[in-house]
Amino acid sequence: MSKATGSGEFALIREFFASGFPRNQYTRLGVGDDASIVTPPAGCDLLQSIDTQVADVHFPATAPAHLIAQRALRCAASDLAAMGAEPQGFHLALTLPNAEHEWLADFASGLRDAAHELDLDLLGGDTTSGPCLVISIQVQGWVPAGSALTRAGAQAGDDIWVSDTIGRGALALPQVLENPAQFSGLARHYYFPQVQTPLGIQLRDLATSCMDISDGLLQDAGHIARASGVTLELDAAAIPTIAERTDSRWLQCITGGDDYQLLFTIPAARRKEAEALREEFSGIARIGKVITHNGEDVLVQENDHILTLPEHAGFQHF
Amino acid sequence: MSKATGSGEFALIREFFASGFPRNQYTRLGVGDDASIVTPPAGCDLLQSIDTQVADVHFPATAPAHLIAQRALRCAASDLAAMGAEPQGFHLALTLPNAEHEWLADFASGLRDAAHELDLDLLGGDTTSGPCLVISIQVQGWVPAGSALTRAGAQAGDDIWVSDTIGRGALALPQVLENPAQFSGLARHYYFPQVQTPLGIQLRDLATSCMDISDGLLQDAGHIARASGVTLELDAAAIPTIAERTDSRWLQCITGGDDYQLLFTIPAARRKEAEALREEFSGIARIGKVITHNGEDVLVQENDHILTLPEHAGFQHF
Repeated sequence: MSKATGSGEFALIREFFASGFPRNQYTRLGVGDDASIVTPPAGCDLLQSIDTQVADVHFPATAPAHLIAQRALRCAASDLAAMGAEPQGFHLALTLPNAEHEWLADFASGLRDAAHELDLDLLGGDTTSGPCLVISIQVQGWVPAGSALTRAGAQAGDDIWVSDTIGRGALALPQVLENPAQFSGLARHYYFPQVQTPLGIQLRDLATSCMDISDGLLQDAGHIARASGVTLELDAAAIPTIAERTDSRWLQCITGGDDYQLLFTIPAARRKEAEALREEFSGIARIGKVITHNGEDVLVQENDHILTLPEHAGFQHF
Repeated sequence: MSKATGSGEFALIREFFASGFPRNQYTRLGVGDDASIVTPPAGCDLLQSIDTQVADVHFPATAPAHLIAQRALRCAASDLAAMGAEPQGFHLALTLPNAEHEWLADFASGLRDAAHELDLDLLGGDTTSGPCLVISIQVQGWVPAGSALTRAGAQAGDDIWVSDTIGRGALALPQVLENPAQFSGLARHYYFPQVQTPLGIQLRDLATSCMDISDGLLQDAGHIARASGVTLELDAAAIPTIAERTDSRWLQCITGGDDYQLLFTIPAARRKEAEALREEFSGIARIGKVITHNGEDVLVQENDHILTLPEHAGFQHF
C-alpha cells in the first residue's frame, strides 16, 4: 500500500540505527542490505527468540524512550540467558505512530547502551509507521552444540533454585504506572532487569532445566513441570521475596511478572557445586524440590501443608 | 505490566502455531521453550531479515486473515531470495486487538500454506495483545560461506536485469483497497507475491549485485547505485511493465511498490549465461546498464534523452 511522501525520516532512522552498536566477531554484514550476514562459529548451536512489547500493555506509553528501549532489549535478551547462550546479535522491528526526531534519538541512545552492556550487535531492522507503538526484538546467541538449557530436563530428586529475589518487578509496577519517568528504587528493576547471562553460561553443565521468570514464579514453574513431566514442590519459607511472607503483597511477589530472574533445577547430588556458585552469584537460593508428577504441576508447601493459591496466577497474555 | 485474567487464548494460540509447519533439517528445537535451537550447517553463512506489516498501512485490516498471512510471510521471505539464500526458518511476532478464534485459525492456515511453499520452519514467536494488528516476521536462510548477493557489487559495464514484469503490485492496489477479499487477477500478485528463491540461488555465481523490488523499481535501483557507487541507466523501452509506456499508469509501474521481483546486475561479458537463464525464468529482462557514477544515482533514458521523473518516486515509509 502507499503512503504520502515524507520528510526524509527514513534517512534519519538509518542514521540512528546504522552505527554505534557493538560489532560481533561473527557478523559479516549488518544493517543496510536486504538481509544481514552472520558466519556461525563451528560446533555451535544457534539460539533465537522473539519478544514484543506494546505501549500501554507492556510499558507506559509515556515512559522516556531510552527506558522503553533498555527494558525491551533486556527482556528479550533474558530468553538467551535462560538457555545458557552467549549473546550474538538482534533484529529490531519498530512500529511508531510518528517518527519524531527527539523520541527516536532518545530510544536509539537507550538501545545502544543496553546493546553494549548485553553485547548484542544490531544486525537489522524494519521501522514502520502505524497507529500504535510496538517493539519486536529478535535476539540470538550461541552455545556449544548440544549444551543449551531447556525447560524439559528436570527430574524427581532435583533441587529447585532461583537466581535472586522474586517480586521486584511486580511491586515496582504501581510506582512505574504512577510516575513512568522515575527510574530509581524498585522502578530501576523494572526498566533495567539484570540479564543473567553469566549465570546461564555457568549453568550449562550443571542445571537439568532452566527458564527465565517473566510471567511470575508460579506460572513459570508450571512450564518446567509440564515440559519435564514432573511436579515442582516449592517451599514458601525458602523463596527469597522482596515482601515478607507476612506481608499482604507476598502473593504478588510469587505470581507477578517482570522479574527476569532464572528458575532452574540441579540434581541434589550436585548441591555443593550449586552452593559454590554463591561466590559469584550471591543471591541464588534453593527454594524446593522436584518430585514425581502427582497430578499437580506446582505445589507451594509451608509447615508441612500445601498452600491453596489462586488458579490464574501470573501474567495472562489474553 | 499486568492484564486481567483471560480466556485461555494463550493455549489456543500455541495450538495454532505449534504444529503443521515444515520441519527444517537443521532445527533441533522449535516453538515452546525460551528460545529455538538451530544447528548451523558447516561452511555456510546465515542470512536474516525482519519485516513488519501493519494493518491499514501495509494491507487492508479487513482482508481475510489467510491472505494477510500469505502476503506477510512472502514479503519477508523475498529478502532472502534477494541475497541468494536457501530458506531455513522464521520467527513470528503477532500483535492483535483481540484473540478471536476464527481469525487466528484462518491466519494460521494461510501462514502454514505459505511456510510449506516457501520451505520455512516456524521456529518461535510471540503473540501479544495490543490496540492494532502488527505482524513482524524474522526470516532466515543459508548460503555457502561468502556467496551471498548484496547491493554493493555493481560495476560500470554490468547489464541491469529484472526477474519479470514490473507494476503488478502498484496496479493491483486500487482493486485490493476496494475489495480486500477478492484475490484473483492482479490482486493475486498483491497477496501471493512469487518469492524468487530459485532465481536468487542461481544468481549467486553470476550477479554482481541483487535486491528485491519492494519500494518501486526506481527507488530500489537507487539503493544498488548508492551501495555500489555507480549510476544505473535504465532503458524505458526495455522495462517490462504491466501498463505500456503510452499508458498513463506507466509511471506508477516503475515507481510503485509491492512487486517483489528481483533487480540484479551481471557483467556484460556474461550476458549469454544470463540469457540462458530464460529457459527456466522466462520473464527475465535486460533493462539497462551500469555506468560510472555521474552525479545521478538512477537515470531513465528514452530515444537518447533522459526522462525527468518525480523526485520522491516510490514507497515512502514516513
